[in-house]
Amino acid sequence: MSTPTAGDLSRLSLNQKTIERWSLPQAVEGCVRAGLPSIGVWREPLAAIGVDRARRLVDDAGLRVSSLCRGGFLTAVDPRARRTALADNRAAIEEAAALGTDTLVMVVGGLPEGSRDLPGARERVAEAVAELAPYAGERGVRLALEPMHPIFTADRGVLATLGGALDLAEHFPAEQVAVVIDTFHVWWDPRVEAQIARAAGRIASFQVCDWITPFPGDALLSRGMMGDGHIDFRRLRELVDAAGYTGDIEVEIFNADIWAADPDSVLDLMKERYRSCVLGPK
Amino acid sequence: MSTPTAGDLSRLSLNQKTIERWSLPQAVEGCVRAGLPSIGVWREPLAAIGVDRARRLVDDAGLRVSSLCRGGFLTAVDPRARRTALADNRAAIEEAAALGTDTLVMVVGGLPEGSRDLPGARERVAEAVAELAPYAGERGVRLALEPMHPIFTADRGVLATLGGALDLAEHFPAEQVAVVIDTFHVWWDPRVEAQIARAAGRIASFQVCDWITPFPGDALLSRGMMGDGHIDFRRLRELVDAAGYTGDIEVEIFNADIWAADPDSVLDLMKERYRSCVLGPK
Repeated sequence: MSTPTAGDLSRLSLNQKTIERWSLPQAVEGCVRAGLPSIGVWREPLAAIGVDRARRLVDDAGLRVSSLCRGGFLTAVDPRARRTALADNRAAIEEAAALGTDTLVMVVGGLPEGSRDLPGARERVAEAVAELAPYAGERGVRLALEPMHPIFTADRGVLATLGGALDLAEHFPAEQVAVVIDTFHVWWDPRVEAQIARAAGRIASFQVCDWITPFPGDALLSRGMMGDGHIDFRRLRELVDAAGYTGDIEVEIFNADIWAADPDSVLDLMKERYRSCVLGPK
Repeated sequence: MSTPTAGDLSRLSLNQKTIERWSLPQAVEGCVRAGLPSIGVWREPLAAIGVDRARRLVDDAGLRVSSLCRGGFLTAVDPRARRTALADNRAAIEEAAALGTDTLVMVVGGLPEGSRDLPGARERVAEAVAELAPYAGERGVRLALEPMHPIFTADRGVLATLGGALDLAEHFPAEQVAVVIDTFHVWWDPRVEAQIARAAGRIASFQVCDWITPFPGDALLSRGMMGDGHIDFRRLRELVDAAGYTGDIEVEIFNADIWAADPDSVLDLMKERYRSCVLGPK
């Protein structure tokens, strides 16, 4: 328990999306084999086994659940689509609470089909968050707004900067609405230093993966293993530390090559790069 | 001269990059055929015919040169590479002056090979701009800093936001250092309204092209014709108008399909979309 190895991995969490092919039971076993203390869970593999069984699995394995991914997609104009989205988010909040995590990652959604009204989409996100925030807070869950790289503004997340996410989050108590800081999404921002400091007390999740070039063909699968790209992880980790965040550090990588590789080898590499790139020297 | 057609195209400029296959003489002829009053010139096709001949061509055709593209690439650490870059930028300044444009578009460069020091790269850009700015100003040329979409931060332009570009530009007189506002690069920014207002007096160029999805495989060729994507051009054009900009509006599209199409048809479509998307209703 107090070996150097256990110690330096004490905040490392595997986000399930890094190993796309594993079911939740497989991912839990994989974390245990790799000596990881925490896991970030996705709703689809969670639904496949049910939240009660999932809770027993992670509890029996002694794992923390660092986050549930994901709620969001709140930009619809159509009233029926909005109601459906709100209902789905309430269900996600309940799942997070039942699973024992206080963090629901929110990918807020892009522009509705055919719309070019970006300020309008952002307003609808704000309205939906206002409706969901007390519901989350009452269940001990924070809506963790994820600012997304501007490559995703059109089709995935209209909150494009940490500053923009905080502008929204600060309308609510910190125990209801917080933010996710994902290195891939924020590393390029000239204001990142000031905005991470500003986020103190509202950082619900810190996620890491790299920005690689040349940019892969599929934007969604363009993330890289730490150390394979251009991000100075230690700098960002130290800024997040300085903002008082002491929670888990999730590795979340969408990448076809990593999905095709042997999962246990990926976890080994992930631990090595976490030590050398995130904890260690840049 | 005063027909409605001429009137509503009175600020429309063809950036040469939109028709990749045309030489500069061909592009000048194409602009004249299409009734366009202005052209944005690139250095490579300019070098192919020489600046004196180019100047006579555009003057004889009665065209304005809205900008010269491009200087920049100022992030090298190696002293020799830095000296080479500075010399090349002085040459570009001289070419702009000789061609009769006051605007040299600056793509400032990405992270040097193997470097993850983004703040350091931004500092070197600031130092190089300080060295070049008086040289430009003395020749009647403004260094027009182009903030680039964060998809290009790693490998092309470490200035990722209009705010970041203005933070740098404001250290210098406006007749030495200004900014380019390109819809593709800035449309996603939640601060774009405030930053365009702040840019008043420093807008050297307004460029338009669209953000299209799904994101094309090659990031460099990912731009679309106005109207084919998600950008509300009229909103941005009105913000730029409100900031007092009365100069040309350049259409600059890097797109393999457009490059493969018949050039005169592209110019026809460009005029139509300029009218309907940029000038007209959204």
